[in-house]
Amino acid sequence: MAPRSLIELAEALFRPRAVALIGASGDPAKNTARPQRYLRRHGYAGRIVPINPGRKEVLGEKAFATLAEVPGEIDHAFVMIEEVERALEECGAKGVPVASVYSNGFADAGPEGAVRQRKLVERARALGVRLLGPNSMGVVDIPGRLALTVNAILEMERPPAGGTSIVSQSGTMLGTVLSRGAARGLGFAKLVSVGNEADLGVGEIVELLAADPGTRVILLFLETIRNPEVLAAAARKAHAAGKPVVAYKLGRSALGEALARSHTGALAGSDAAADAYFRDCGIARVDLLETLVEIPPLLEGREPLNLGRAGRVAVVTTTGGGAAAAVDRLGTLGVELASMNDLTMTATNESYGATLERLLRSPDCDAVLAVVGSSAQFHPQLAVEPILRAAASGKPLAAFLTPQAEESLALLAARGIAAFRTPEACADALAALLRWNAPRERPRPAAPVVQVKTDPFEFFAALGVPVAPWQVAHAPHYAHGIDYPVAVKAAGVEHKTEKDALRLDILNRKQFDEIVPAFGGVPLLVQRMESGLAEAIVGYRNDPVFGPLVLVGAGGVLAELYRDSAIRCAPVSAAEAEAMIAEVKGLAPIRGYRNLPRGDLASLARVVSQVSSLALVPDVSEAEINPLLVRSEGVVAVDALVAFKE
Amino acid sequence: MAPRSLIELAEALFRPRAVALIGASGDPAKNTARPQRYLRRHGYAGRIVPINPGRKEVLGEKAFATLAEVPGEIDHAFVMIEEVERALEECGAKGVPVASVYSNGFADAGPEGAVRQRKLVERARALGVRLLGPNSMGVVDIPGRLALTVNAILEMERPPAGGTSIVSQSGTMLGTVLSRGAARGLGFAKLVSVGNEADLGVGEIVELLAADPGTRVILLFLETIRNPEVLAAAARKAHAAGKPVVAYKLGRSALGEALARSHTGALAGSDAAADAYFRDCGIARVDLLETLVEIPPLLEGREPLNLGRAGRVAVVTTTGGGAAAAVDRLGTLGVELASMNDLTMTATNESYGATLERLLRSPDCDAVLAVVGSSAQFHPQLAVEPILRAAASGKPLAAFLTPQAEESLALLAARGIAAFRTPEACADALAALLRWNAPRERPRPAAPVVQVKTDPFEFFAALGVPVAPWQVAHAPHYAHGIDYPVAVKAAGVEHKTEKDALRLDILNRKQFDEIVPAFGGVPLLVQRMESGLAEAIVGYRNDPVFGPLVLVGAGGVLAELYRDSAIRCAPVSAAEAEAMIAEVKGLAPIRGYRNLPRGDLASLARVVSQVSSLALVPDVSEAEINPLLVRSEGVVAVDALVAFKE
Repeated sequence: MAPRSLIELAEALFRPRAVALIGASGDPAKNTARPQRYLRRHGYAGRIVPINPGRKEVLGEKAFATLAEVPGEIDHAFVMIEEVERALEECGAKGVPVASVYSNGFADAGPEGAVRQRKLVERARALGVRLLGPNSMGVVDIPGRLALTVNAILEMERPPAGGTSIVSQSGTMLGTVLSRGAARGLGFAKLVSVGNEADLGVGEIVELLAADPGTRVILLFLETIRNPEVLAAAARKAHAAGKPVVAYKLGRSALGEALARSHTGALAGSDAAADAYFRDCGIARVDLLETLVEIPPLLEGREPLNLGRAGRVAVVTTTGGGAAAAVDRLGTLGVELASMNDLTMTATNESYGATLERLLRSPDCDAVLAVVGSSAQFHPQLAVEPILRAAASGKPLAAFLTPQAEESLALLAARGIAAFRTPEACADALAALLRWNAPRERPRPAAPVVQVKTDPFEFFAALGVPVAPWQVAHAPHYAHGIDYPVAVKAAGVEHKTEKDALRLDILNRKQFDEIVPAFGGVPLLVQRMESGLAEAIVGYRNDPVFGPLVLVGAGGVLAELYRDSAIRCAPVSAAEAEAMIAEVKGLAPIRGYRNLPRGDLASLARVVSQVSSLALVPDVSEAEINPLLVRSEGVVAVDALVAFKE
Repeated sequence: MAPRSLIELAEALFRPRAVALIGASGDPAKNTARPQRYLRRHGYAGRIVPINPGRKEVLGEKAFATLAEVPGEIDHAFVMIEEVERALEECGAKGVPVASVYSNGFADAGPEGAVRQRKLVERARALGVRLLGPNSMGVVDIPGRLALTVNAILEMERPPAGGTSIVSQSGTMLGTVLSRGAARGLGFAKLVSVGNEADLGVGEIVELLAADPGTRVILLFLETIRNPEVLAAAARKAHAAGKPVVAYKLGRSALGEALARSHTGALAGSDAAADAYFRDCGIARVDLLETLVEIPPLLEGREPLNLGRAGRVAVVTTTGGGAAAAVDRLGTLGVELASMNDLTMTATNESYGATLERLLRSPDCDAVLAVVGSSAQFHPQLAVEPILRAAASGKPLAAFLTPQAEESLALLAARGIAAFRTPEACADALAALLRWNAPRERPRPAAPVVQVKTDPFEFFAALGVPVAPWQVAHAPHYAHGIDYPVAVKAAGVEHKTEKDALRLDILNRKQFDEIVPAFGGVPLLVQRMESGLAEAIVGYRNDPVFGPLVLVGAGGVLAELYRDSAIRCAPVSAAEAEAMIAEVKGLAPIRGYRNLPRGDLASLARVVSQVSSLALVPDVSEAEINPLLVRSEGVVAVDALVAFKE
């Protein structure tokens, strides 16, 4: 029976009263014996039912040949056999509401596997069974003592229970975060390996965790985003429930992106688009893997800061070099020091504590960083103890301990104080905190009235974008009514720098007639020459991974080479577009740089917002104005393209 | 008596037969009691002589009121009193060859302290005493059982001995590296806290370590470079002795740079200049602090690779997600995968070992990365054991273990195999290895014959740079012999975009006469209008921190905004200049981009090399051609400036 509500799904997934282990091995050295061993080892209180046609008993539990023979209800099946389809049928027949599938050979194994996976999901829907995986390492609930997983990390004794849950597209990395955190005394709640996300994906699990009383922070290890809308909605629910969501996502480099594609069978999406997406959802993003382990106490119980400016940190330290290492890194991440004097060197318990208290009360900083040098290892009474004492303030506090100092780290963890082993993870976490925003209120503009399958200039003019006057002139006379000077190109040819099919600055009809024969009789687009203070590019894309995106950047070859642009989830308001424009370095010359004349940024922002409203026109896959000339008053599009869905 | 040779200096510094502790406290809880406690604790075999006028005995050793009363020779004095000058006089009178000064209040404490420091050094020279510090935490020699330091890290039991030595401008961070390394089983040789570097600085210590039989890798923790020439020469000696030198340097951000200045009283220099400097010296640079701890086994016994191209890594792994995290990071650092197929997922001992052996023998990669997932923590026999077995190959091998896996890390450390806790430090170390070059053979061009204190156009023309024809025209007639069209500006005015003092495209004498009155009668620079395919900037600076540097970048406002340029230590050959040009993104349009016409890169390189030869003209502090127009044949300078030393 399919679970009828989120609560029932959560119960079956995380709190099953009975689990069936389909393919459980009697050889304790095998991976397929692990779930049974781990369930027992970590004190699972429910019923464990091994399914193994070759044995009457598996590792001390009565075994059954098939699910059908099992008396009583099964809430959750863990499937480890190759014949996943057969196991699914048994689950359906038995009325098992959830099956976690460890077996692989589906979308992870190329196109044929993807077809097999689609069929599996269809059948699961028909049977009323929800699927986790395939290629999932399973589910762990540490306070609930459920270790339904093959992940070898569960060999560990007593992982600490806490309020941090993690959802991972990599089963191994789920174990990595648990193992690193446990060694530091950082406790966890639920850990879910989503595998191929055929049915229950990251978004569905985040939705469950948003409603889970035991979860206070949600961590995500992502290689791709398979269902951005579901995750976006779930992240908003988590925000509403006061639960920060933090993502570590691969695909920062082209190499990583290609790898994610080959490894997960899914597109990774561009990294800038991922940033835009996380920002839209109110998900904090970290750069370093260790930050994901260390950041939860910094965010727990906290609302997004919504600073809208660079964050400011004040620092108290016993070591100049250690503080400088963290502050230097903060500087590369755009964070500022509250004041240079707030890097306070002090080495006694009293002065360190007093300084820390003063900074935590100061209105001049958004967060406080407490750095402790060598004393953190053998003399915690000097500077670690004042940090433990100071924690009650409402201001975010992060501690960076420069030496190996496991006891001090454990003391801080026990008090719920965020502590970091490296200056880089410390800076990464503080920067993520300081740029963390609530989920964006998406504007809801009316859908623009545009004609699909039309000429790009017509298209953008209909959207309300000022376009340089143009006309298509035809053989033999090439009559047109555009005022000179004009530009001429073969109609329908894109990327002018790659083709020699563009002639600029044609001053009069005589020059026009001279150049026409070179085009060989094709129709010509004749456009009035325009000039502006700067060139901009405004683009829209319905991204296959992240959905509708809008982009603004500086125009021209150099800006293209520098990949200098701002991206957001579309649509955006004109005010949001102005914030985007402010991020583009290459538009600095028209923002008032070295006394250069200012461009009409309000008109540029209006065009960005208009183009972003294409998110409401499902037929458009891509659209771009390049260049849009920005003048001291107004803007004008001089080249454009638009692509429609097939 | 001043040491008469490097060997004598090294003996007194690292192997003193007797040390005097000036200001040793009898209260074991005080910092000033630490050196005596640590010397005893770590088994110092020589004579310990506390100097304390108030006591006959300190912590069980006979104490003396002054150095003069001490019978026998003292090789090394450790000064902990405020009256450093008095201690120095005593050292001089007693013939102590080296004094390490822990006391601060010198250059670390502002301009007055800097004056005090200069006097101290002068007096030390006169007395024949070499100084370490002031503001030094002292010297440690782990195999030699010398712990002459106040650093609390030496509370630890038995730090492991090894071949890695470290020189640090921060005493605390020296302890940090020792403490982190020791916890991992990574052994150290000598550790030196150089403090303010009043006499013995980083360069002098590196020179000693280059000659030290116990040192195989030299690590540097740097906040600034106080004496670049001494360090450059020492790094070359270390290279000649087969000892890799690795630097972690602060000052990557403007914030870090400002902080280093306030904290050390020294300029940090620009980070791009630091990169150029390290490259010149053959010093490998790492980005993350933990990399400094983890990288030594990767470089030990190895020559710089001098690849001259992107490095290629092959990967064997038990975890897709773990490998992807490292590879994604490698991608952001410009490293390539040998082939996408070389990310080999394998989970049994035999197949993992066989794959690793194959990759280590493969000619298609420069280094091998072995990633181990959850099994590294509890089942090292699966994938860690094959790595331990495979180490004999000559190819660099790095292991990244995703979980908390202290025992596996210790096993790898014991076998001298580089192992990493985080994907980021692993990628950082591999990238540093793959871009590591031998110290640069500096070209030795003849000094160019240029006139100082001359007009910039004259100056660059004399240097052999093609300059657009120009003349200075004077009131009242402003006669000139330059062919039209011309550009006109007030002679001697720089930064044309900031001033409204430039008029372009003056087509004839009539137009010329029309615009002249607007300049108000000042002399005018009249220059022939030139055109080119692209604008470049070529600059030279005698940097106050790093010495002579040459720069090439794309010209124009955008390139300036993007800070897109290549920097090297000057002078450079034309071939080196070509390599620099290839690094500049903004010059891509003239390197053959999208069928755009190619520029004369050889002529541009020749100008870069010519400008770099200003390193041989000590009077020039700064010189810049901006823009230099690059044509399909030849280049021409149209604006320039030069600054001379006062």
